[in-house]
Amino acid sequence: MKKVLVSNIGMLATPKGNAARCGEEQGKIEILKNAWVLIEDGVIAAVGTGSPEGADGAEVIDAEGKLVTPGLVDAHTHLIFGGWRQNELGLKLHGATYLEIQNAGGGIQSTTNATRSASKEELRAKAEKALDEMMGFGTTTVEAKSGYGLATEHELKALQVIRDLDDRHPMDLIATFMGAHLVPAEYKNDREAYVRLVCEEMMPAVREQGIAKFCDVFCEADTFTVEESRRILEAGLKYGLRPKIHADEIEAIGGSRLAGEIGAISAEHLIVCPPEGIDALAKGGVIACLLPATSFNLGAVFAPARDMVKAGVPVAMATDFNPGSCPCLNMQFVINLGCLKYKLTPEEVLTAVTLNGAAAIGMADRVGSVETGKQGDLVIWDAPDLDYICYRVGSNLAGTVIKKGAVV
Amino acid sequence: MKKVLVSNIGMLATPKGNAARCGEEQGKIEILKNAWVLIEDGVIAAVGTGSPEGADGAEVIDAEGKLVTPGLVDAHTHLIFGGWRQNELGLKLHGATYLEIQNAGGGIQSTTNATRSASKEELRAKAEKALDEMMGFGTTTVEAKSGYGLATEHELKALQVIRDLDDRHPMDLIATFMGAHLVPAEYKNDREAYVRLVCEEMMPAVREQGIAKFCDVFCEADTFTVEESRRILEAGLKYGLRPKIHADEIEAIGGSRLAGEIGAISAEHLIVCPPEGIDALAKGGVIACLLPATSFNLGAVFAPARDMVKAGVPVAMATDFNPGSCPCLNMQFVINLGCLKYKLTPEEVLTAVTLNGAAAIGMADRVGSVETGKQGDLVIWDAPDLDYICYRVGSNLAGTVIKKGAVV
Repeated sequence: MKKVLVSNIGMLATPKGNAARCGEEQGKIEILKNAWVLIEDGVIAAVGTGSPEGADGAEVIDAEGKLVTPGLVDAHTHLIFGGWRQNELGLKLHGATYLEIQNAGGGIQSTTNATRSASKEELRAKAEKALDEMMGFGTTTVEAKSGYGLATEHELKALQVIRDLDDRHPMDLIATFMGAHLVPAEYKNDREAYVRLVCEEMMPAVREQGIAKFCDVFCEADTFTVEESRRILEAGLKYGLRPKIHADEIEAIGGSRLAGEIGAISAEHLIVCPPEGIDALAKGGVIACLLPATSFNLGAVFAPARDMVKAGVPVAMATDFNPGSCPCLNMQFVINLGCLKYKLTPEEVLTAVTLNGAAAIGMADRVGSVETGKQGDLVIWDAPDLDYICYRVGSNLAGTVIKKGAVV
Repeated sequence: MKKVLVSNIGMLATPKGNAARCGEEQGKIEILKNAWVLIEDGVIAAVGTGSPEGADGAEVIDAEGKLVTPGLVDAHTHLIFGGWRQNELGLKLHGATYLEIQNAGGGIQSTTNATRSASKEELRAKAEKALDEMMGFGTTTVEAKSGYGLATEHELKALQVIRDLDDRHPMDLIATFMGAHLVPAEYKNDREAYVRLVCEEMMPAVREQGIAKFCDVFCEADTFTVEESRRILEAGLKYGLRPKIHADEIEAIGGSRLAGEIGAISAEHLIVCPPEGIDALAKGGVIACLLPATSFNLGAVFAPARDMVKAGVPVAMATDFNPGSCPCLNMQFVINLGCLKYKLTPEEVLTAVTLNGAAAIGMADRVGSVETGKQGDLVIWDAPDLDYICYRVGSNLAGTVIKKGAVV
C-alpha cells in the first residue's frame, strides 16, 4: 500500500458531502487549521488536525503552512478542437457579435472545418498540452465535450480522443456528446435531417462505443430551438446519456425552463437567465454551471449568480475553454471572476469550483472535497488562506498539484 | 564580444523609434516574417529577414517560427510594500468603495503600517519574488514607486530597496518617489505639515542619495488636491525629479489638466478623464499611462483609451501592481484588457506595453523596441502571431524571455 501524508497544512478549506450544495449550504465549507491529509493508494484515508495519526512509513509532502483545497473541477470545456480563432479578434474589436461572426463563416463552423481535417493524433497532442496547462493551474478533473465534428465520424473521433486522454493523462476526463452544437453548413437547408442524424445515427454509435456519459445541446436562437433541444435530450436519455443544456447564453428562449422540466443534471451559461428560469432550475434540482470567463471575453453581462444562490440553485463554475468565445483554460481566473463579478463569497466560489463542479458531471462521490473515501486530489497553494487565491489576479498560485496522491 | 543570434522568428512585431508614438502612429508597427535578431554584448547589433548576416560564432536561440516582440515595459508599479490585503475582499463584496475602505483604516494606511515595520531585507525578498514572476510573464523593465513609507526614513528605505534590486536582479528598475501617496494618519490634522515634509525633507534626501528619477503624486479627492499636487510636483522639479501624476482615477478633480500644464512625462489611471483633460494631455505632450487591471479589480469603468488615441495622446499601459486596488503583476492580462476593454487594436496595444511604456519612464532610447542600438530585451512567445497573445486569456505565453541578450 502506498501511503502519502500531506502535512503541515496551514489552512485546509473544503466543502463536504457527495452531492451539490445549494443556498446557504453553498457557502458553508470546512476550514481546518494545522491540518494533515493521509492518502492511501490514491484515496483519502484520514483527515485531521494536530499530530498525524496512522502515517507511519508514509511519504511526506510538507505543505509549509499553506492553503490546501480539493483539486479544481472544470465541469465545462470544449477541449477537442482543431485550430484557433485569434483572427476573429479584429472583427470583435469592430463590434461584430458572436452570431454575426458565425453567420460570416467564422465561429463554430470554422473550428468544425479545422477539427474535421485534424487527425486523432493531432487532436490528442493539442488537447494534451491544454490538459498539462490546466493541471498546472490546479485542475484535476475535466469535463470535455465533442461538438466540433458535427458528423458521425468526427464526433466519434473527438470522443475517442477524450477516452484516450483519460487513459493516458493523469487528469480524470468525463466525456459529453454534443453533436447538437451547431447545424453544420451542409445541413443548413435541412436542419430536421441533422437533428435526426444526431438522434438516430450519432447517439446509437456513441452508446455502442460507450464513450460518453452526458448529452449536451446548444439551445439558442440560430442554433437549436427549445423543441429540437427537448427531442435531442430525450433521445439522449434513451441511449443512457444524461442531459446537459447550453441555455440562456445570449437570448433567453426557454432553455433554463427546459432544463428544469427534463431533469437535466446541469444547465450551462445562463448569462441572461430570467427569474422564471431560475425557478425552473431550483424546482428541477438542476445545477447552474456558470462560465464567467465567457462573459468576460464576450464583454457580456454576468449570470445572476447571487440570485441563483438565493433561490437555492446549486452554482458550479467552469472555464468553457474553447477557441472562440473563451480561449481561457485557467480555473484560477474563474475563481477571481466568481468573487469580482458574481459577487460570490470565497467560500461559495470554492464550492462552485470543486464539489458543485463534480456534482455537475456526476463525480461528487469521488472528487470535489477533501474527505475520507474520496480521491486524493489536492492543491497546495502558494497562499496563506482562501481569500488570497480569490484576490490575486494573474499569478499562477497552484504551487503543488496532487492527483490520486501523486505530485503531478 | 558575446554574440547571440535569435533565429527562425516566424513573426517579429515591434514599434519603432526612440519616443512615444501617438495617434495613428501608435498602431503602425513593423512586422517582419522569417526574421532574426543579432545581439552583441547585450545590445541589438542587427535585425533582418532571411539568412542571418554577421552571426558567425554567435550562440543561437531558435525561435522555432514563433512570435517575437520587445520585452514588455511595466511603467507603473507600487512594487515595494509589506503585507497583502486579501482581507479587504469581503468588504468589497459587500459594496464598500476604495475610499470607504481607506477611511475605515484599511487601504493604503494599513499597507503603510506593514511597510514601516518590514526590514529592508524583508521588502527586498518579497519584491524579488514579484520581479521573478513578472519576468516570467515577459516583463523586462519595471517602474517602481515608493509611497507606502510616508515618513522620510521609510520612503528612503523603499527607494534603496529599488536601487538594490536594480543592481541584483536582471530586471531594469526605474524608481519614482511617491511620498505624496496619502497623508499618513499622524498628519491627518495637519496636512500642510505633511506636504512640507515631502517637499522640504524627503525630496532633498532623495536627491542627495540620487535614488529616484521621477516624482509622483496621488491627486484625488481625499488624498492631495490639485494645488497641493502642483506644489509637490514643482518642488520635485527643483530636485531634478520629473513629474508624474495619478490623475482622474476616481473623480476628475483636475489632475489631467495639471499634468498638461506642468509638463508631466505621464499621467496615470485617467479612468474618468474628461474631454478637456484629454485635450490638456495632448497639448502638454503627456503620455497617458493606463492601468486597465485596476479598473477590472475595482469593477470600475475603463479609461477612454480610444478617445485618447484619437486625440493624439500617446497611450501606455501598465499593471499598477499593488496590494490593494490591483494585486496583479501580469502584463499579459493587461494586453488582454487593452483589446477586450479599451478596444485598442493588437498593434496599438503592443506599442502601449513596449515603446510607449518605455517613453513614460524615460527609457525609450534604450528599450521598448527591437532595433539596432537598443538593449537586447526580447520575448519569444508560445504564439504564432500578435493576435494570439491578445486573444488567449489566462495562459502564460511568454515562452523564452531574453534580457540584454541572455535567456532569463
